[in-house]
Amino acid sequence: MAIKESKTDVLIIGAGPSGYMAATWLSRCGIPFRFIDKRSTEVFSGQADGLQCRSLEIFKSFSESCFDFATLDQSWKVANHMIEMCFWSPDEKGELVRNSRVADTIPNISRYTQSVIHQGNVEKWFEDSIQHFSEGKAKVERPILPVSIKIRDDVDLEDPQSHAVEVLVTKLDSESAKPEQYGQIANGLFRQFDGDQDKFYKDISDGNNEDDYEIIHAKYVLGSDGAHSWVRKQLGIDMEGEQTDFVWGVLDMVPITNFPDIRSRCAIHSKDSGSMMVIPRENDLVRLYIQLKEVERDPGTANEERPFSATDKHVKTKGRIDRSKITPESILKQAQNILKPFSFEMTDLSWYTGYQIGQRVSPKFSKQNRIFISGDACHTHSPKAGQGMNVSMQDTYNLGFKLALVCKGLAKQDILSTYESERLKVARDLIAFDHKFSRLFSGKPMIPNSDMLDGVDLDEFHSVYVEGNKFASGTIVDYEDSLLVSKENALSADADGCTMNKLASKVPIGRRLYSDRIISHADGRPIHMADRIPSDGRFRVLIFCGDVDKNKENLEQLHQFQDFMDSPKSYSKKFTPVNAFADSVIETITIHGSLRDKVEFFDFPEFTHPLDFKRRCDYWKLYAGVGSTYHEGQVDIYETYGIDKQKGAILVVRPDSHVAQVSEFSVDGLKQVDNYFNKFMIPQTENVLPEKAVTVDDTKRFVKPRLAV
Amino acid sequence: MAIKESKTDVLIIGAGPSGYMAATWLSRCGIPFRFIDKRSTEVFSGQADGLQCRSLEIFKSFSESCFDFATLDQSWKVANHMIEMCFWSPDEKGELVRNSRVADTIPNISRYTQSVIHQGNVEKWFEDSIQHFSEGKAKVERPILPVSIKIRDDVDLEDPQSHAVEVLVTKLDSESAKPEQYGQIANGLFRQFDGDQDKFYKDISDGNNEDDYEIIHAKYVLGSDGAHSWVRKQLGIDMEGEQTDFVWGVLDMVPITNFPDIRSRCAIHSKDSGSMMVIPRENDLVRLYIQLKEVERDPGTANEERPFSATDKHVKTKGRIDRSKITPESILKQAQNILKPFSFEMTDLSWYTGYQIGQRVSPKFSKQNRIFISGDACHTHSPKAGQGMNVSMQDTYNLGFKLALVCKGLAKQDILSTYESERLKVARDLIAFDHKFSRLFSGKPMIPNSDMLDGVDLDEFHSVYVEGNKFASGTIVDYEDSLLVSKENALSADADGCTMNKLASKVPIGRRLYSDRIISHADGRPIHMADRIPSDGRFRVLIFCGDVDKNKENLEQLHQFQDFMDSPKSYSKKFTPVNAFADSVIETITIHGSLRDKVEFFDFPEFTHPLDFKRRCDYWKLYAGVGSTYHEGQVDIYETYGIDKQKGAILVVRPDSHVAQVSEFSVDGLKQVDNYFNKFMIPQTENVLPEKAVTVDDTKRFVKPRLAV
Repeated sequence: MAIKESKTDVLIIGAGPSGYMAATWLSRCGIPFRFIDKRSTEVFSGQADGLQCRSLEIFKSFSESCFDFATLDQSWKVANHMIEMCFWSPDEKGELVRNSRVADTIPNISRYTQSVIHQGNVEKWFEDSIQHFSEGKAKVERPILPVSIKIRDDVDLEDPQSHAVEVLVTKLDSESAKPEQYGQIANGLFRQFDGDQDKFYKDISDGNNEDDYEIIHAKYVLGSDGAHSWVRKQLGIDMEGEQTDFVWGVLDMVPITNFPDIRSRCAIHSKDSGSMMVIPRENDLVRLYIQLKEVERDPGTANEERPFSATDKHVKTKGRIDRSKITPESILKQAQNILKPFSFEMTDLSWYTGYQIGQRVSPKFSKQNRIFISGDACHTHSPKAGQGMNVSMQDTYNLGFKLALVCKGLAKQDILSTYESERLKVARDLIAFDHKFSRLFSGKPMIPNSDMLDGVDLDEFHSVYVEGNKFASGTIVDYEDSLLVSKENALSADADGCTMNKLASKVPIGRRLYSDRIISHADGRPIHMADRIPSDGRFRVLIFCGDVDKNKENLEQLHQFQDFMDSPKSYSKKFTPVNAFADSVIETITIHGSLRDKVEFFDFPEFTHPLDFKRRCDYWKLYAGVGSTYHEGQVDIYETYGIDKQKGAILVVRPDSHVAQVSEFSVDGLKQVDNYFNKFMIPQTENVLPEKAVTVDDTKRFVKPRLAV
Repeated sequence: MAIKESKTDVLIIGAGPSGYMAATWLSRCGIPFRFIDKRSTEVFSGQADGLQCRSLEIFKSFSESCFDFATLDQSWKVANHMIEMCFWSPDEKGELVRNSRVADTIPNISRYTQSVIHQGNVEKWFEDSIQHFSEGKAKVERPILPVSIKIRDDVDLEDPQSHAVEVLVTKLDSESAKPEQYGQIANGLFRQFDGDQDKFYKDISDGNNEDDYEIIHAKYVLGSDGAHSWVRKQLGIDMEGEQTDFVWGVLDMVPITNFPDIRSRCAIHSKDSGSMMVIPRENDLVRLYIQLKEVERDPGTANEERPFSATDKHVKTKGRIDRSKITPESILKQAQNILKPFSFEMTDLSWYTGYQIGQRVSPKFSKQNRIFISGDACHTHSPKAGQGMNVSMQDTYNLGFKLALVCKGLAKQDILSTYESERLKVARDLIAFDHKFSRLFSGKPMIPNSDMLDGVDLDEFHSVYVEGNKFASGTIVDYEDSLLVSKENALSADADGCTMNKLASKVPIGRRLYSDRIISHADGRPIHMADRIPSDGRFRVLIFCGDVDKNKENLEQLHQFQDFMDSPKSYSKKFTPVNAFADSVIETITIHGSLRDKVEFFDFPEFTHPLDFKRRCDYWKLYAGVGSTYHEGQVDIYETYGIDKQKGAILVVRPDSHVAQVSEFSVDGLKQVDNYFNKFMIPQTENVLPEKAVTVDDTKRFVKPRLAV
């Protein structure tokens, strides 16, 4: 008897937020994939809880259409929105006082604010989302343990559709795959369940128990299997970075206190009892992050040294902590000391953990563009800035659409290289940020006019926090010039270091497109740009044709685009399989700069209101970017984007809503759009889909646009 | 063998939107009920589609807490929002032109705008909602036919908990209970399936098939069983009103047209081809309401006369139409004529129907406060103003919380009388509105400077429409002085005829509380007042204590309220069962008028931040009504409500968010609150719940407040 073998496009190993995000993309785009996890149970409380603005934007973007409800969007409904950050520290008399309050999220950086909800919820919504998009076909298979992985040397690696990666997996029994916990109360102090791959490998090599094994042949494999990533180890990649000496406790409970800011986010530096971060959560829970003073350590591990970077000071630690000695009571006691003279008790304890801050990053995120790692497998750091779950999801939000484009045969395999180049930089920035923030947060405070002058300057802490907030929001992630980002026309750079083309002087190229409202020309409904370009796998070309009422030549120019759009050589035809909906790979949207009642819908050329094979008109390609709405005030996206209403501009936006290119509003500008796509897209003029492909689900075609099937 | 007998608090007969809304209330409040429908299948397309602002507000109000996602709230996400209304009519040359455009919903009348989604969706969300609130226990039983109903004369009708209504029902086989359709395409032209109660009654009287029958003993029965209501007939109530001679066709399809406003709501009066209403819907569907010119009639029914009211002109009709002769093609042909010279074809036909406008209202809505009727059973009219589903749901939104309060033993049975007094007036207003609107809509237009001067004045039509829009939104429904509304302190009245107390000069008593934002004092988060007072069965006392920073005496006054609140004789204790959460029947919320950073949370008296049996603090009873928010601009609900920041005011709000009373911010004002509740609430000081009642689900106590169990 032989071991069962099967094929799939993508195999995802590890069902945490990072793996789920990849699975969401693949489900959304209709890519066949497998999704395995070695644990028998899901996470139900504790662990990560912070959701940054960008993550919330991404969740919303997985709506099916402009107006649909996205399963993941529930997070914004149910999560606790953190509005205010309060800074507490000793005054000159050493008494704890509120020093200042600021907005927890920088105003106008996003439609969302930083929010908190436990990871178990997020994973559940991901599960639902995958179910929904795959129509029930995709789900996590657990407990499945990967036993071996290899890139085959007998297949054509140049062929992006070859099933080049071979992964041997085995089904575990549920009991052995349960994480083993210390203590009665749910906590994060469990023994990492690694599985014993060696034993299984020997077992199967000896020809035993073949029924329990399966060989999965995948085109691509993603290892999103956590900080102790088995996939990373198989690739022989070591994490780089350091262990610090700071030990932290985490406590989720309902507080009983007369401290007035317990429902705000607080950074509290006590005089000599250490520091604490207060994170108010859903259901009246509060999470405390507390620097622990007294923790038993393993003397055998003292003085381990691991440099973070060449210029970094090496830290000799006092040894690894014995995590089993950390109790809720010990963490609570410390919190009481920090908060004095305020009273502090707790009830409804729901989770706790303890850990040493480690700041590490993987120097490589992929192998041969066939195997990738993401999330904690690539970067670990302290949890106080609420970054972990977010950056991990954003890794695969970056990778997922690229895998989909390659698996569909729409784009060249080369685009996969941009995953590492784009995300490794983010990971390094993250570790550097955490490094700085942790040091300031963990140190003793400086108290003016006292004997504590050599401590952490709280003004510096405050400004690092505020500056860091921009980074932490996830909204300013900036991807460099590459196959997928063209900064060659970028002429200016601002203080933040982002590059703009003067035609859209407030649109940083390489960053996600900031969202503002536009008005649907056909029905007058205002919608957010972001909602008009949901994550459905499509590129968008946004034509800002200016005020065609005041500049009649702009309308003429726009009419001249029709020939270009009709040409089989232009981006609008060339990369779309024959018989697929015309907009299913690259969608063109026109946003004019005129008042809606000054121009008529049918004044605009045909490509702004195209007909489909049944002669049904698509009313949702033409928008007014300026004007007043009946219920939502004024709109001026030209102003928001720094686009002149006479000159106009053309933007190319990637499927992840990052701005890829800005060019001028002219036929030349359109040719630059062609050039952009020619670099990495594969012509589809020979790829003739069966005619029925377009009629499947065709009543939903505008509602449910998918990547060309 | 005997017939099976069972008991329940409420029996709902008929699972349309009206029955569903009642079921939602009862599920939300934990009342045992049965819910039967004689049809074997649900409605899946067509029928009603308009959702007015007030219905959307009500849907949102069935969130579990301020921030939760309400199942019914999906309607606002998925429905097509109608933004603009366009009026088209012949110009002086007789050519069809756009005369004007207006907002389809009056700006600032609500957080919502009029929206469209088909009834099947709404019923599905109701189904989910009931499932959710009842934790899977409640659902529609179908096909179940009621055979007989009676109020027993051998029980104590004075006892509100007596099971006074006896209903005999029988289980049908699914096939016989399917509505029989004419034609192939889904349409509204089916033979009304009435069931043959007489046959069944004889059958069971003869002692046959006892297994197929059940006697349900209910405290209360609701007949929400449609225009041909069996329950209404059993009560011997005849509808009053008239049949008109206008015949209308309805078509749901995807249009192919060069008419530019097809995605806006349009009222189109053609020169001599009749009138049409365009309703743009979800999924690119468009619904047309078209006045049909040529329809075969049954001559035998000609000249039937039914007066609407004594002063009304009697209409002699040309006879009832033969509905089976109405085809999609005949309706389309008429549409093409009306829209000339624009082209008009259709594809993806999904539903159609035809009907004669009847305008009828039931003179009574209840019998002995034990049996009630609602929705189409009480009122029928034309569908063009999109009122049907809305008023029907609002009937039972009014009745449902009253039934819950009575079934729980919290309020006297007398409050049930206010159902008829409050809703009959609305039904009569609705019929009068529809009467006026239909006449203007169905008539030939007047064309200035032509030979068509005696037609409908389109300016009058336009202004009736705009005026009617206010009524149609459902937001100005005004309940008269009664046991549940106290207008005795109302000192002023505005042009609209609504009554206000000068202490809250912009809060009409008897209408639903207009929602504006307030800021949570504990965490700075702005929320809508409406979201803070969701439909969970509780009354609210809103204390507007003014600016306590500038007026220190106001803070002192507020502190003096503490004694009152602690007294077992006050509303805050007297009506709450012993061991129930203190706020589970009547909740007191304080909204101060100071800037949030000028006053501290613990400056306020204890009742604004009460502790529960575990000493957990409720942080969500204290709000700032003024100030700036970090992300959502300025807030000033004192201004919105016309409340002076020095004087303050106290508002009582009913569970359906209608304003019940306004009194002054003083201990005297609180005593008036006591007086309000003393009239109809039942003291609960002897009603000792088992202690475990409060601890059930207690981690969710602020999230999931329910009417005292």
